[in-house]
Amino acid sequence: MNDIKKVVLAYSGGLDTSIILKWLQDVYHCEVVTFTADIGQGEELEPARAKAKALGVKEIYIEDLREEFVRDFVFPMFRANTIYEGEYLLGTSIARPLIAKYMVEIANRTSADAISHGATGKGNDQVRFELGAYALKPEVRVIAPWREWDLTSREKLLDYAEKHGIPVEYKRSGQQSPYSMDANLLHISYEGAVLEDPWQAPEESMWRWTVSPEAAPDKPVELELRYQQGDIVAINGQNMSPAEVLAYLNQVAGAHGIGRLDLVENRYVGMKSRGCYETPGGTVMLRAHRAIESLTLDREVAHLKDELMPRYASLIYNGYWWSPERQLLQTMIDASQANVNGRVRVKLYKGNVIITGRESDSDSLFDTKIATFEDDAGAYNQKDAEGFIKLNALRMRIAAQLRNKRS
Amino acid sequence: MNDIKKVVLAYSGGLDTSIILKWLQDVYHCEVVTFTADIGQGEELEPARAKAKALGVKEIYIEDLREEFVRDFVFPMFRANTIYEGEYLLGTSIARPLIAKYMVEIANRTSADAISHGATGKGNDQVRFELGAYALKPEVRVIAPWREWDLTSREKLLDYAEKHGIPVEYKRSGQQSPYSMDANLLHISYEGAVLEDPWQAPEESMWRWTVSPEAAPDKPVELELRYQQGDIVAINGQNMSPAEVLAYLNQVAGAHGIGRLDLVENRYVGMKSRGCYETPGGTVMLRAHRAIESLTLDREVAHLKDELMPRYASLIYNGYWWSPERQLLQTMIDASQANVNGRVRVKLYKGNVIITGRESDSDSLFDTKIATFEDDAGAYNQKDAEGFIKLNALRMRIAAQLRNKRS
Amino acid sequence: MNDIKKVVLAYSGGLDTSIILKWLQDVYHCEVVTFTADIGQGEELEPARAKAKALGVKEIYIEDLREEFVRDFVFPMFRANTIYEGEYLLGTSIARPLIAKYMVEIANRTSADAISHGATGKGNDQVRFELGAYALKPEVRVIAPWREWDLTSREKLLDYAEKHGIPVEYKRSGQQSPYSMDANLLHISYEGAVLEDPWQAPEESMWRWTVSPEAAPDKPVELELRYQQGDIVAINGQNMSPAEVLAYLNQVAGAHGIGRLDLVENRYVGMKSRGCYETPGGTVMLRAHRAIESLTLDREVAHLKDELMPRYASLIYNGYWWSPERQLLQTMIDASQANVNGRVRVKLYKGNVIITGRESDSDSLFDTKIATFEDDAGAYNQKDAEGFIKLNALRMRIAAQLRNKRS
Amino acid sequence: MNDIKKVVLAYSGGLDTSIILKWLQDVYHCEVVTFTADIGQGEELEPARAKAKALGVKEIYIEDLREEFVRDFVFPMFRANTIYEGEYLLGTSIARPLIAKYMVEIANRTSADAISHGATGKGNDQVRFELGAYALKPEVRVIAPWREWDLTSREKLLDYAEKHGIPVEYKRSGQQSPYSMDANLLHISYEGAVLEDPWQAPEESMWRWTVSPEAAPDKPVELELRYQQGDIVAINGQNMSPAEVLAYLNQVAGAHGIGRLDLVENRYVGMKSRGCYETPGGTVMLRAHRAIESLTLDREVAHLKDELMPRYASLIYNGYWWSPERQLLQTMIDASQANVNGRVRVKLYKGNVIITGRESDSDSLFDTKIATFEDDAGAYNQKDAEGFIKLNALRMRIAAQLRNKRS
Repeated sequence: MNDIKKVVLAYSGGLDTSIILKWLQDVYHCEVVTFTADIGQGEELEPARAKAKALGVKEIYIEDLREEFVRDFVFPMFRANTIYEGEYLLGTSIARPLIAKYMVEIANRTSADAISHGATGKGNDQVRFELGAYALKPEVRVIAPWREWDLTSREKLLDYAEKHGIPVEYKRSGQQSPYSMDANLLHISYEGAVLEDPWQAPEESMWRWTVSPEAAPDKPVELELRYQQGDIVAINGQNMSPAEVLAYLNQVAGAHGIGRLDLVENRYVGMKSRGCYETPGGTVMLRAHRAIESLTLDREVAHLKDELMPRYASLIYNGYWWSPERQLLQTMIDASQANVNGRVRVKLYKGNVIITGRESDSDSLFDTKIATFEDDAGAYNQKDAEGFIKLNALRMRIAAQLRNKRS
Repeated sequence: MNDIKKVVLAYSGGLDTSIILKWLQDVYHCEVVTFTADIGQGEELEPARAKAKALGVKEIYIEDLREEFVRDFVFPMFRANTIYEGEYLLGTSIARPLIAKYMVEIANRTSADAISHGATGKGNDQVRFELGAYALKPEVRVIAPWREWDLTSREKLLDYAEKHGIPVEYKRSGQQSPYSMDANLLHISYEGAVLEDPWQAPEESMWRWTVSPEAAPDKPVELELRYQQGDIVAINGQNMSPAEVLAYLNQVAGAHGIGRLDLVENRYVGMKSRGCYETPGGTVMLRAHRAIESLTLDREVAHLKDELMPRYASLIYNGYWWSPERQLLQTMIDASQANVNGRVRVKLYKGNVIITGRESDSDSLFDTKIATFEDDAGAYNQKDAEGFIKLNALRMRIAAQLRNKRS
Repeated sequence: MNDIKKVVLAYSGGLDTSIILKWLQDVYHCEVVTFTADIGQGEELEPARAKAKALGVKEIYIEDLREEFVRDFVFPMFRANTIYEGEYLLGTSIARPLIAKYMVEIANRTSADAISHGATGKGNDQVRFELGAYALKPEVRVIAPWREWDLTSREKLLDYAEKHGIPVEYKRSGQQSPYSMDANLLHISYEGAVLEDPWQAPEESMWRWTVSPEAAPDKPVELELRYQQGDIVAINGQNMSPAEVLAYLNQVAGAHGIGRLDLVENRYVGMKSRGCYETPGGTVMLRAHRAIESLTLDREVAHLKDELMPRYASLIYNGYWWSPERQLLQTMIDASQANVNGRVRVKLYKGNVIITGRESDSDSLFDTKIATFEDDAGAYNQKDAEGFIKLNALRMRIAAQLRNKRS
Repeated sequence: MNDIKKVVLAYSGGLDTSIILKWLQDVYHCEVVTFTADIGQGEELEPARAKAKALGVKEIYIEDLREEFVRDFVFPMFRANTIYEGEYLLGTSIARPLIAKYMVEIANRTSADAISHGATGKGNDQVRFELGAYALKPEVRVIAPWREWDLTSREKLLDYAEKHGIPVEYKRSGQQSPYSMDANLLHISYEGAVLEDPWQAPEESMWRWTVSPEAAPDKPVELELRYQQGDIVAINGQNMSPAEVLAYLNQVAGAHGIGRLDLVENRYVGMKSRGCYETPGGTVMLRAHRAIESLTLDREVAHLKDELMPRYASLIYNGYWWSPERQLLQTMIDASQANVNGRVRVKLYKGNVIITGRESDSDSLFDTKIATFEDDAGAYNQKDAEGFIKLNALRMRIAAQLRNKRS
């Protein structure tokens, strides 16, 4: 334990990571560098600086990563219409590789030999942090206090805090909730407490980013989203940066009761767990992206993407963002979006995301002349269908003839 | 054309298939057997009998196939959480193989040598009917009037009807709508008219089975669905047959504004087309089935199903229900459902399907003792995670070391 | 038929395409442009020019496409370790999109409105030619004489030739064989005649490019292949162009009895057919490419490629080289090859391709320090395996505990 | 360590597992039950009994599992044409789940609470043993001495043996080789020693089951294999049990120089390793099974199997034989074989496996009438191909027209 000189800690400023900070100093006798990122979790970061200072930290890194988060992580993931296990939009999963990247970069800048984080040994986040760190800095050491220490209950933690002079008012606002929470610009998540019984619904007070559909306005709102190469670049005619797009959609969709999810999911470490999620903007983005692709993407390309998506989602969920196979899939996904340009109109109403129009001046493969129910002036020759069907049926006819002969 | 003696016509009793009936008699000089099925389209069938008789048909088959439709087609498809292109619940696609099966059976019973249907040469339905028929009766002849005749506009059709004494009041109720429609117990679909412009939303009056979310009741309803081997067998404690389940869910969910879809999709014949769909019961079933599976299905089995689902969906969409590859996939899907038993509670409110609980006495793989955020008394050893991560990272670390050495 | 003014014919100079040439002139009354390509089939092309001239053709295109063929079609395909149905190296399939590309380019250059080819209506080649042409020049007209004319037997063809003054000595050398043959730098294929009985082996005299293993030299030869980004760039230390590589390997491997294949395959048009193939160089390339990848490719990237390969192979076999989905897959396959650099040593002996060594100075992911059976000085911590196994087992243990509780 | 009372040891009778036996008694102070299986490794088992007795073991289990091994593990795997990473026939992988099953059964019979094995912490075998054991007996304890003890070099092992009175002549014949070896009825494998350099070829003396192609007879041998539901049931007209089939093929194919493989593979624990394998019978079985399937399997079923095969192979390689996902895939694979009946003729010559015929009286889907190059009397209508191609091209034509319009 004494060969670690300096460790970069992913530090939120909350009670848990403050205890970790102290524990690292005491147990590993090493210097701690703190890294605190704004990824849209909606908390002020300056208090974290003050707390770190108070605990004797000399190198304090605080970064606003909101644009990078949405531009380089969230948007690429949405190009694939990514959903884990049919429902989950991967809000927590997609933020972890960004944090891992910065822990490594700061370790390089500060010549630290280790990183540390506050994720437990039961969850996916430890895997996501550490796989990312190892992939980017293979010799890095990882200290995961929750897997090492004996502070296994809340009381022990509080005792430790008191004993070491960590003010217990050091609390993230979220900590006052009975739930274990995580937030970033894409989503907020809740685990634990009553959610450990999958038959029990969460109380209304749990949700923080969305109103309930019942409480949402009686009047719908309609948005027009402009897409360039698969990404939203403007809303209602106004150009926006990636983080602006997501923040705006979160606000509007959240106000209309959109994006709640209550799920039992399969963790990479082998257990099932219950989570509730609010992903208002992401919920709109998924539906709208499918709508613009429905006009502009070739059928077989779309189907290929659909077949690979579950695997791509699992890679992200399991923490393999920085793996060569995820990067390779991304190459293909990104290439597929070259012509995904146009506009989507979407209506938001009490939890509903309703597509009300999609068009693409330059890239629509929807050919009204061919698709029409009216006279198509020869654009499509219906007689072609006979041969198409006959040859597609041929192998089944040969098999059926054989069956008939046998019986 | 004169070697066909007898043809089985899939006959709705509407204007189009009445014209086809007459046209077959006139052009092919063959006997026509009519087959009309109740698959829950919500129309009386006896008028079809009268019309067929009036047109001189001697062999008239009218069958109530609602239970068979849901039990042997809809339910098996929902075991796979089937969605085509991320959105479409395959309401039309899944009914066609059942019709094909009966056309063939009646052809066998009546010694007919051909079948005929009213699907056009542009759509998927011709493929679904004919692939099914060829797979089940390889030597059967198919007459697809829309691919053969020159009645290419509505006026020509009406002229033909008048000229041949087919009362133009012979109309399906749906025909009065400007849309091309198709209905069965799983869904109702709309195509054509203003929908040919994907930027234009359908008017509210188009929809027939659901109220709009706006018009739905302000009070939600909650249902409890009981599953056995992946199928719903009871609702709110009351045992129901498959068709009863679907009819009940359609009624309740439709009343709560659930199940509308507005989509641009890729047809098997190569064009994009716009369709609107109402699938109230199916929309509930999809969400609830995922919920019960989330508790009772192994992670890797669930992921395998998810990866194969798009292909399975395409097989059904493209008309390959009776193919050996669809049957093989079904073998696996059905086997996966052995332990998908338990209950799901679902709240329906203004277009929203909200899962509020899931449990399985006998088959839940959710292990609270392991998943808990509280002290787990050693059920899970957090230290195991270190080795798990280290070995999963190994290949990426070796690659990164090589990259470092190179640079 | 009279609205076609000018047609580009893929012209071999043999009897069949000479008859087609004449037939196009007579039946379509259009000008014929001939296009003859050297893709390594091993025949002189100048006689084709003379014959075309004699038949009154004014625009005659003869192109040496060997380098383009191997560089842009064969090599990219081998980067994916492509095999159709477990055995077939796609020698014919991969040449067709190149021919289609040139038919279209020449049609554009000569303002022709149609293309024509000598493939029958039963095979895959018609599909490959025409899908390619339609993808590259969507308005092009296609004339496929074998699907149109009534010259359905060899006698009728010969009669037609005689009647129209086409010298019957107009024969490709291959024509004297009882087999239907096709050759290019990658392979030569045989179909028809005794091969129509899958229980019957072909006689030894059929094979043209390889000796039998029995007749091959008693002394093996060893080659050293150098790879750059997945392609062979040198053999035995000598740099070679793509076509040189393949020609050299064909010669050496063919002399050692390598590359024969006798296969029943599934055609895209729905029937099974029997084919025999000689692919001497390709057989070496497949094995050697896997060997260099075994050192230099990440495990998960390799597995992803393996899982997508059958679909990629089917796309090529079915004629979808110019489709967006094939191009998208190629993007990913090519990107995977960035580090596939190094050398492979291979021994050829009487039909056997034996890998005897592989190395990569710059890109080997084989880490002897870790893999060794000797003391690894801590490079790998065996204790990590316990956690790895425990967490990978967790879901199965939970399921087994449930099973035990039930029983 | 003192809460384990009784452990079942997979005991070969060789030096390593004898040391383990002693070590378990000394360090864990527990009773050891030995289990020794004949899975065709070609060694006498009675010496193992004597050695176990000499070491004080009271419960000694020796089982002849050859038939079960081939019938329930090897044959099911070959139904899928299983190959790992394009080359490896999984000879070691497929034996481990059988051993795991018996370790668990004997633990149940003897009320043992733990199992133990001699696999190291670097390899795949530990994973295969332990995943199997955990899946079948979730509460079982596993002792993996190589991950625990400090006997990390051969010298330390020999010292330990001497010190504890384990005769060093306790050696498996294989142990005298410099290679780490493993054998069963499907294959023999070699790792370590000079093989740790992938550029170095193994010396000829390493191979034990096959002669080199050079040393094989100059005269080929021809075999006729009869298949029922995908499995070989007779050779040259003589009915044989599964183990007899494999033993016979091993002997004949090995004598003809068939089945050597020299490979760099990706282990599940994250490293690349070099292995050499002899799989004479399996090499014949793979080729012959594909041949009988080529006649009797539907195209799309065959392609589905091919696409799923790499995943199925990885499951077996990684030790997931007893997982629900492997069992589910097996359900489908087995169902696909219902009509895989008939005969295959195969010629073996100096390392070559040459298919010389395949037929199926009852189940051949090869339809000569349709496939023929001669006049087919209307069995196939060539004109159908036009519509087939036109509609398959439609989406690409629409896209190309759009591209043309844009440019």
